[in-house]
Amino acid sequence: MTSIRDYGGEFALIGAISGILGKPKDRKVIAGIGDDAAVIALDKKRDMLVTVDMLVEGDHFRREWSTPRQIGRKAMEVNVSDIAAMGGLPKYALVSISLPDDTTAEFVMELYRGMKDAARKHRFDVIGGNTTHGSRLVIDVIIIGEVEKNRLRLRSDAKAGDLICVTGTLGKSTAGLETLKAGVKGNVREHLEPRCRLHEAREISKYANAMIDVSDGLSSEVGHICEMSDVGAEVFREKIPISMNTRSLAKNLGKDPVEFALHGGEDFELVFTIPERRLKRIRTRCQITVVGRITKKRHGITLAWGKVKLPLGGGYDHFRLRRTS
Amino acid sequence: MTSIRDYGGEFALIGAISGILGKPKDRKVIAGIGDDAAVIALDKKRDMLVTVDMLVEGDHFRREWSTPRQIGRKAMEVNVSDIAAMGGLPKYALVSISLPDDTTAEFVMELYRGMKDAARKHRFDVIGGNTTHGSRLVIDVIIIGEVEKNRLRLRSDAKAGDLICVTGTLGKSTAGLETLKAGVKGNVREHLEPRCRLHEAREISKYANAMIDVSDGLSSEVGHICEMSDVGAEVFREKIPISMNTRSLAKNLGKDPVEFALHGGEDFELVFTIPERRLKRIRTRCQITVVGRITKKRHGITLAWGKVKLPLGGGYDHFRLRRTS
Repeated sequence: MTSIRDYGGEFALIGAISGILGKPKDRKVIAGIGDDAAVIALDKKRDMLVTVDMLVEGDHFRREWSTPRQIGRKAMEVNVSDIAAMGGLPKYALVSISLPDDTTAEFVMELYRGMKDAARKHRFDVIGGNTTHGSRLVIDVIIIGEVEKNRLRLRSDAKAGDLICVTGTLGKSTAGLETLKAGVKGNVREHLEPRCRLHEAREISKYANAMIDVSDGLSSEVGHICEMSDVGAEVFREKIPISMNTRSLAKNLGKDPVEFALHGGEDFELVFTIPERRLKRIRTRCQITVVGRITKKRHGITLAWGKVKLPLGGGYDHFRLRRTS
Repeated sequence: MTSIRDYGGEFALIGAISGILGKPKDRKVIAGIGDDAAVIALDKKRDMLVTVDMLVEGDHFRREWSTPRQIGRKAMEVNVSDIAAMGGLPKYALVSISLPDDTTAEFVMELYRGMKDAARKHRFDVIGGNTTHGSRLVIDVIIIGEVEKNRLRLRSDAKAGDLICVTGTLGKSTAGLETLKAGVKGNVREHLEPRCRLHEAREISKYANAMIDVSDGLSSEVGHICEMSDVGAEVFREKIPISMNTRSLAKNLGKDPVEFALHGGEDFELVFTIPERRLKRIRTRCQITVVGRITKKRHGITLAWGKVKLPLGGGYDHFRLRRTS
């Protein structure tokens, strides 16, 4: 018997699972396991996107840190982020939830009010789901979205020479989480109230080649793009955008904020690759930072720091690191 | 603060949640909360069905009773059952799973082999999902299906005068569960390996009015049909089909098998209502039993037993009864 860790972690296991499940027989399936959302052809102009993401109490949130309304919003934002990363718009959500005995009716209603907040903001309907009993509070959200065929962005379309860009700033969620875990003071709102980049994604999807959202750290996301696109990458450590607040939280903790950006989870920013000539058109529309360049595969995936070049290692793996517990 | 039980249980809570989420704004949403699956208009001829069902370790299965392959199959069958109950066919599945530290890679692969068994049998593709870490093994399956518009069967279409019919036999899953819990001998296969009635559902959907699957006991399912169709019902206690094995297991436990049929969960048979004149056409195609009749609403929902008539009370409620723990 092999532990998941010894097997090679979450991503190795997903590889084995893909093998068991086999390739889809239905020719309408455009992308399946290995992207932010599954893609199914809908009609001549549009594809359907389906994504699911589970939040488990103790691992992804704690009731003593978050209000139920914040938990509800987060459960939706992390899923909308996956739809955004494909270039699409969310249309319908389903919520599957397991409630422990000690959950109050008031808590559950606040949780759903939080989900409704996000649904209203991003203009989609929550149309169904499932409630059951369980020893842990588990919230699994499914979002169905749509994307015009020419706006669909996959992880697999990065080209050597593309610039690697990110929206917003990175490391902020992990900085907040570590601050909460250490029990020290600081502004942790970005951990408790992550916001996905749906609006920016719709702009970027007009010009980008590959796109992914940052759920497991920049290092992991660049790795996914390289693997799926069969390319290499060079990330410039000093270009990684980090906010003043993240720097200040990291300083209080005696930690390096760049490590949070590279290996922390749940920032829900976008990483995308784009030919240099198209960069200007995006710059006028959203705040982005160039953090690296896609290279040929033989150059590997590296992190450049002045004259030093290191391999850009791993990312957030659910079976190596743990989020809140 | 109000416990879910004091609030009125699962179904009262779902009512409150529906109010918070509001009616869908998208006019393509044909049915949402309150049916076995959500229904979204796909094109002129077909609707899309989406269903989700969560299995939580300890509540819906136990690793000491089931092999991982059985758990994987069950996770799929319970969801295909919801698609079947709407008259449709499953097309695509997504699996969202939370794995505790003690899960082995072998266990996870067997689990997915079980899911693949069901996908192969019912001819659909597993196209994506999500894995995460959690303190409990939680398996949430999403199935997307399709149904021809004239074959869509809702809970809300029962008409006074319709016969109430069921496929197969009832109470078998609970008989098996109670046998396992008591630690006595007996054939418990029907609890460990539930099979949904997809083939029968496709036949029945040509002729039936309302349809639902039996996940929470006959009493609960008839109640749902009556509530959504604004009708009453009379169920004949002595007509409820119960297998020899279920009778024998119940006898060993000193329990009444009819109670298992009425109030137990997870049989995954179909309950449907049909005008009497169409009954013959179904009888030639599948094994069904007439167990009652839809009445006008003012007659209430009753259980008839010889000359005695009693109100047909409640069903399986996840916050009143517990499955395996």
